[in-house]
Amino acid sequence: MGKSPTVEDVARAAGVSRQTVSNVINTPEIVREATRDRVHAAITQLGYAPSMAARRLRTQRSATIGIHLDPYAGGISGSVLDRFIHALTDRATPRGLRILVYAASDAEEELRRIRLLREGGEIDRIVLTGTYAGDPRADWLAEHDIPFVAFGRPWGEPGAGAEMGNPGRAWVDVDGAAGTRAATTHALAEGARVAFLGWPAGSGTGDDRERGWREAMGLRPDEPNELRWTAVDSVSAARAAAERALAERDVDAVVCASDTLAVGAHLAASHGLHPDLLVVGFDNTPVAEALGLSSVEQRPERVAEAVLDLLVADGESHLGAWHRLIEPELVVRARDQLS
Amino acid sequence: MGKSPTVEDVARAAGVSRQTVSNVINTPEIVREATRDRVHAAITQLGYAPSMAARRLRTQRSATIGIHLDPYAGGISGSVLDRFIHALTDRATPRGLRILVYAASDAEEELRRIRLLREGGEIDRIVLTGTYAGDPRADWLAEHDIPFVAFGRPWGEPGAGAEMGNPGRAWVDVDGAAGTRAATTHALAEGARVAFLGWPAGSGTGDDRERGWREAMGLRPDEPNELRWTAVDSVSAARAAAERALAERDVDAVVCASDTLAVGAHLAASHGLHPDLLVVGFDNTPVAEALGLSSVEQRPERVAEAVLDLLVADGESHLGAWHRLIEPELVVRARDQLS
Repeated sequence: MGKSPTVEDVARAAGVSRQTVSNVINTPEIVREATRDRVHAAITQLGYAPSMAARRLRTQRSATIGIHLDPYAGGISGSVLDRFIHALTDRATPRGLRILVYAASDAEEELRRIRLLREGGEIDRIVLTGTYAGDPRADWLAEHDIPFVAFGRPWGEPGAGAEMGNPGRAWVDVDGAAGTRAATTHALAEGARVAFLGWPAGSGTGDDRERGWREAMGLRPDEPNELRWTAVDSVSAARAAAERALAERDVDAVVCASDTLAVGAHLAASHGLHPDLLVVGFDNTPVAEALGLSSVEQRPERVAEAVLDLLVADGESHLGAWHRLIEPELVVRARDQLS
Repeated sequence: MGKSPTVEDVARAAGVSRQTVSNVINTPEIVREATRDRVHAAITQLGYAPSMAARRLRTQRSATIGIHLDPYAGGISGSVLDRFIHALTDRATPRGLRILVYAASDAEEELRRIRLLREGGEIDRIVLTGTYAGDPRADWLAEHDIPFVAFGRPWGEPGAGAEMGNPGRAWVDVDGAAGTRAATTHALAEGARVAFLGWPAGSGTGDDRERGWREAMGLRPDEPNELRWTAVDSVSAARAAAERALAERDVDAVVCASDTLAVGAHLAASHGLHPDLLVVGFDNTPVAEALGLSSVEQRPERVAEAVLDLLVADGESHLGAWHRLIEPELVVRARDQLS
């Protein structure tokens, strides 16, 4: 098949201006009938698919939601986003909504994809994932009038924190601080020395999870504390950090910012001098289940439900002050269950 | 917005028959110009989107591939299908292909979804996953002229086994027997007593993986063997089965049909009297990595590449004798790496 005919081709074939073709398509009532008929004939003859047809098809069929699928990075916690996408698909399908997934290696490429898909009438709405401080995507989508809901807060912007009443973008997120608060409260039954193994400071999600531990421990926000340990999100880094910390001091339990960190802490403790140390993870991944570790469950199914509610209830008018925080759930496993 | 106008509405408004409307849309050259113009005017006035417009839009844009996303079932091995979908999206996007995911709780519901999506012009091709003996989907798709490629062999049908020359559906699969053959050959370095922990007989995938072990061990296909152990695919069932078997006989290694089974065998061995027993899994999941278990990697990225090659190279003419078997890769991990 050759190059698709353009509006210029139609104008030339009908002997009218580009603007007249556009008028016939968008405001036919202002065009004389004879001209209108000539343009219609040219459209049919050339096989031109005017954007109006695209728009009509779009309104006749259900909305299609675009969502970025990150490249598979392996690792333990990747399953949370996959669970979310499963849940979104599972709940969108009976509502008659479509889910179109696309790949992109960075935010710029993602916005180029969205633009193309939107121009082609292939998507109507967007679910953003993996939001971060300085994320350009939300502003871009708002500027281009593309309705969207983010899974994840726009960290660093007004409305991202606890002040839920502030205007901001529509987003749904998991209340990480509530999760680590519950984990820490549970761990305090073991004794007062509950350590927190988190990521280096500066990530919105990580700082939020640290906050829950501090609140349950009665510590002030930025107070240095010898029970606050850090490692990047890898099993070996977490294991090394936990081994060093456990060599220096006794603790009663370790609450972790992820299951990856928890596996590292678990290996450090169980192969060291603390075979019975309570370790609590975050994300409730298959790894935590296989090792019998307690972990905070993000409930991605509830996140998906809330995202769809915000996305479809009222269309574009949602670009406003709509936020939902999902309460996570601590899944407690008996430590002698498997090990 | 009200009910969409139909071809009958257009015919009534233009004062012509339904067939004439159809002719104007599909073969305008056989319709008198005055009639054509009247029908065009009615189409514009009513906002009718003829299926021709849908067809044009469809041919102007890239093909959209539909793929079923199973409900998230948790567990260890679910990550393989997720990796495949990541890889498919990752490779489809730069080719200009779209991926639309949908949910369905069984084959019948999946076929209903596919029919609706196809009729709406929303998908052009299908990737089937989770094929099984007696699977009705491939026949249905072929009958309805919907191009598709399956990830997974049509177990139980001609062409599903080693006779790759047989005509059959287009499919791509991982050579499971080659994977367990490599794992068993690797394990034989530990000693001659290499057990196989698989699922109960009767699943195409499971029987195929058992075959690789038998071949490397020099055993005949159906010969009973005390080193052939079975459990359903759960950590606790696998652990119990391995504990029972290990109590009865010494073995040098255990090759498993999945990482789930391997975690069970690993827990049975490491908490029992065989802390150093070599256990090899299948699927190379994050759990195998976290526990430092060797495992057979399915290479879902290569599967995705092959599926796309078969799906797009020549459109519908592929409904023929196209098969690809992907060679998996044994990922060897030092047993003292983490434990």
